[in-house]
Amino acid sequence: MAFRPQDTIARKRDGVVLSPDEIRAFLSGISAGSIPDYQAAALLMAVFFRGLDERELAPWTEAMLRSGDVLDLSSIPGTKVDKHSTGGVGDKISLPLAPLVAACGVPVPMISGRGLGHTGGTLDKLESIPGFRVGLTVPEFIAQVGKVGVAMIGQTAELAPADKKLYALRDVTSTVESIPLIASSIMSKKLASGTDALVLDVKVGAGAFMKTRERARELAVTMIRIGASFGRRVVALLTTMEEPIGREVGNASEVRESIEVLEGRGPRDTVDLTLALGKQMLLLGGVAGSEAEAGERLTAAIASGQARERFGRMIEAQGGDRRVLDKPETLLPLAEHRLEVKAPSSGYLAALDAEVVGKAAMGLGAGRLKVEDRVDPGVGASVLAKVGDRVEAGQPLVVLWHRGDGREREAAERVQRAIRLSDAAPNIPGLVLERLDIRS
Amino acid sequence: MAFRPQDTIARKRDGVVLSPDEIRAFLSGISAGSIPDYQAAALLMAVFFRGLDERELAPWTEAMLRSGDVLDLSSIPGTKVDKHSTGGVGDKISLPLAPLVAACGVPVPMISGRGLGHTGGTLDKLESIPGFRVGLTVPEFIAQVGKVGVAMIGQTAELAPADKKLYALRDVTSTVESIPLIASSIMSKKLASGTDALVLDVKVGAGAFMKTRERARELAVTMIRIGASFGRRVVALLTTMEEPIGREVGNASEVRESIEVLEGRGPRDTVDLTLALGKQMLLLGGVAGSEAEAGERLTAAIASGQARERFGRMIEAQGGDRRVLDKPETLLPLAEHRLEVKAPSSGYLAALDAEVVGKAAMGLGAGRLKVEDRVDPGVGASVLAKVGDRVEAGQPLVVLWHRGDGREREAAERVQRAIRLSDAAPNIPGLVLERLDIRS
Repeated sequence: MAFRPQDTIARKRDGVVLSPDEIRAFLSGISAGSIPDYQAAALLMAVFFRGLDERELAPWTEAMLRSGDVLDLSSIPGTKVDKHSTGGVGDKISLPLAPLVAACGVPVPMISGRGLGHTGGTLDKLESIPGFRVGLTVPEFIAQVGKVGVAMIGQTAELAPADKKLYALRDVTSTVESIPLIASSIMSKKLASGTDALVLDVKVGAGAFMKTRERARELAVTMIRIGASFGRRVVALLTTMEEPIGREVGNASEVRESIEVLEGRGPRDTVDLTLALGKQMLLLGGVAGSEAEAGERLTAAIASGQARERFGRMIEAQGGDRRVLDKPETLLPLAEHRLEVKAPSSGYLAALDAEVVGKAAMGLGAGRLKVEDRVDPGVGASVLAKVGDRVEAGQPLVVLWHRGDGREREAAERVQRAIRLSDAAPNIPGLVLERLDIRS
Repeated sequence: MAFRPQDTIARKRDGVVLSPDEIRAFLSGISAGSIPDYQAAALLMAVFFRGLDERELAPWTEAMLRSGDVLDLSSIPGTKVDKHSTGGVGDKISLPLAPLVAACGVPVPMISGRGLGHTGGTLDKLESIPGFRVGLTVPEFIAQVGKVGVAMIGQTAELAPADKKLYALRDVTSTVESIPLIASSIMSKKLASGTDALVLDVKVGAGAFMKTRERARELAVTMIRIGASFGRRVVALLTTMEEPIGREVGNASEVRESIEVLEGRGPRDTVDLTLALGKQMLLLGGVAGSEAEAGERLTAAIASGQARERFGRMIEAQGGDRRVLDKPETLLPLAEHRLEVKAPSSGYLAALDAEVVGKAAMGLGAGRLKVEDRVDPGVGASVLAKVGDRVEAGQPLVVLWHRGDGREREAAERVQRAIRLSDAAPNIPGLVLERLDIRS
C-alpha cells in the first residue's frame, strides 16, 4: 500500500510506534514539499501529546540530519567537542569557553544560534565585534577549526534544512515545547556539524525553558540517548537559571565580560560555569584524565594568556578586529544613556528573575521578539548585585544601558518587578545541579 | 494585545477553556483564509486530544453556522423537523421516512450527504431516480418544503462553509474521529438549514463510526446539548449497526426497498427503524401526543397510500420521474450480472459484518473511496438472510449485482469473510438500544 501521510498521523495520534520507513517518508516529504504544512502541523501536535519513543528518536533525528550536508571533520586530528546550552539570560559562556578549550588542545567546531525571546544568542554577541563574520562557508569553517582549533558559526542552509523548516512550523503551531522535538532538533544540527562529542548545558529554573529539574533531566537523557545511537558521547550538566549569569546581559557587554574571564577576572558564576563545562569538554576530548586535571589545565591556559590569545586568533580568522581584546571600552559599542534601578528597601537580594531581566534587555533592543527584528549591540543591563548580597535602600542593583528613546521606562519597571528582597539571607542553590552521562 | 492564532493553539494544547472571542476569531480566520491551514491543523489535533467543553461548543458551532447563510423557514407553518443518521450500511431510512413524516403533517427540510467509505449517502441514492435534482437553490428548497412538505438536498456552498473547509482539513489530518468536532460539524449544518428540531439516529456497533455504546451516547449527548444552547429540541436514538439494514445495499436498489416500505411491505428492520424514527419526528413536530398515537398515524399514512403519494410528489417537484414508484424494476438501474455468495456450511447466521459488506458494495462501485469517485447506481448487494436465520450449506446468503469487470471476485471474498455461522441460535440485540432526550 502506498504511503499516506494521514495514516502516519493517525498512528502517532493513537500512540502507535512509527516505523523507521514511515518516519523517513514523512520527514523527507516535508523537506521536499510533497507533504503539505498542514499535515506536518498535525503530526507535530500529535507528537506533542504522544511523544517519540526510543525506537522513533533515532530515525527521526537521522531523517533531519540526512536532509542536508553532514560535515566531515575527520581531516582534523583529535576528538572534536562542541557545547550546547538550552538558553539562558546573560549566558555568554560559549565565548570564553570555546577558545579556552581549544587552547587546551581540544578542537571546537561550534555551531551557534541567534537570540529569540528573553534569551540572547552567541552569534549576535560575536557580531558586536567590528568585522566579525559568523557566516563562514563550510570549507572555511573546517579549515579554521583545523588551523586555529576553534570556529564559531551559525547554522548554514546546508545543515539539517528539514529541522529549519520544522522549527519554523513549530514556532507558529505552538509545538515548540516538546522534549523529543527539542532534543531531535538540537541533535540533528550537532550531528550534522561533524562533532565527535558534545557537552550540554541544560538550564533549569524560572529563567529557563525547562522550569523543573525533572523536565530538564528528561531533555538531557533524551539527547544523550540520541547521541549514543549515533555513536557520539554526550555529557550533560543541569545548571541553575534563576538570576542572570554573571554581570552583563546584552551583546557587546557580554563580549567584554567574556574577555575578563579569559584574563582571569570576571564574575564568579560566569567563571565557575565556564570551568565546569570546560572540564567536561577536556574529558570528552581525551586531553585530561580527571576533573581535577582538567581544571588545572584550564586554569593554566587562562593564567598563561593562551586562552585569551586563542580568542584573538579566532576573531582575526573570522574577519574581526582583535584589538577589542586590548581596548574593549572603546572598540565595543555601549549605549550613551544609563538608568539605575535601585533597591526599594534594605535587605538581602532574594531573587532577580532572569526571565524578566532578559525581557527588559530585549525591550531595550538587545534581543528579538520576532526573528526578523534587528539587535542593538550597545544596549543591555548590568547586574550589580547577586542573589544573597546584602543591599541598602536606594543602592543601584541594575544599570540599564539605553538609547533614550523612552523604552527604558518599561524596562526599568520590569527590572523592579524582577527584584525580590528578604530580611534573612536566602539559600543559594549550587550552580551545577547534576551531571548526566549515561552510557548505552 | 492582538489575536495570535498560536496563542489560542497553545491554550487549547494546555487544556485551557478558550473564550468565545478567540473561537470566533480563529474560525473566521480559517474561513477568510487569513489563518493558514497549518495553524488550523494544529488546533484541530489539539482539540482531538483535549476536546471542547460545554462553554466552547456553542461558540464553536455558532462560528461555523455564521460563516454562511442561515435559512429562514419561518414562513412555513408548523414545526420543521429533520433527521440525521451517523451513517450505516443499507441505511436508506431517510428515503421512506421524510415523505412519510411529511404526509403526517410535519414539514421535513432535509439536508443530506454523499456516501464515503463503507457507508452510502442519501443524495447518491436519490440520484439513481432518473432526472432527480439534489441541487435545488435555497429559494427552491424553501418553496418546496412549504408546498410539498418535504425536500431533500445536499449541503450548498452557502451553508456553513467554514465546516466544509474544516471537514476537508480533518479528513487529511486524521482528526475526523473527535466527538466535539463531529457534533459541531453536524449541528452547524443542521442549524444553518433552519430546522426547528432534529432526530438523531446514532449508530453503534461493528458497522458504525461509533464502535461502543459509550462513545455513541457521548456523541448524542454532545449534539443534544449544542441543540439546547440554540433553543432547538434534539432527540437521539442509539440503534444497532451490526448487519446491514434491510435487504439492499447499493443505490437504486435502496430506492426500490424504500418504495416497498411506503407500500406497507419491505424488510422488518427497515420498516421498524423507519417507524421508530418517525414516531420521534411526529412527537417533536407536535402532531402526536404519545409514541402510540404517533405510531398509529404513521401506519395509517402508509396504509392509505398518502406516504407513497408524498414521495411521488417530492420526486416530481425535484425533477425526477415519479413513474419509478409504479415501475421500479424497469426505471431504476440494475447491474446485468449476479454472483451468489453461499453459506459454507449449515447453521445459524450469527453475524454478517455490515462494514465488510459495505466495503464489498463500495468495491463494486456503489460507494466512494475518495470524494472525487463516481458512483454506479446499479451495482450493490442484496442480503437474503438476516442474523438469526437458520441456513443450509450452499444456500445463497448474499447476491452481488456487478458489471462483470472482475471486481466482483474481491467483493465476494469480502462478503465470505463477513459471514459467521454458529451451531446455536444467536442472541439478537434490539434495533433501538436507547432513547436520549436531555432537557437543559
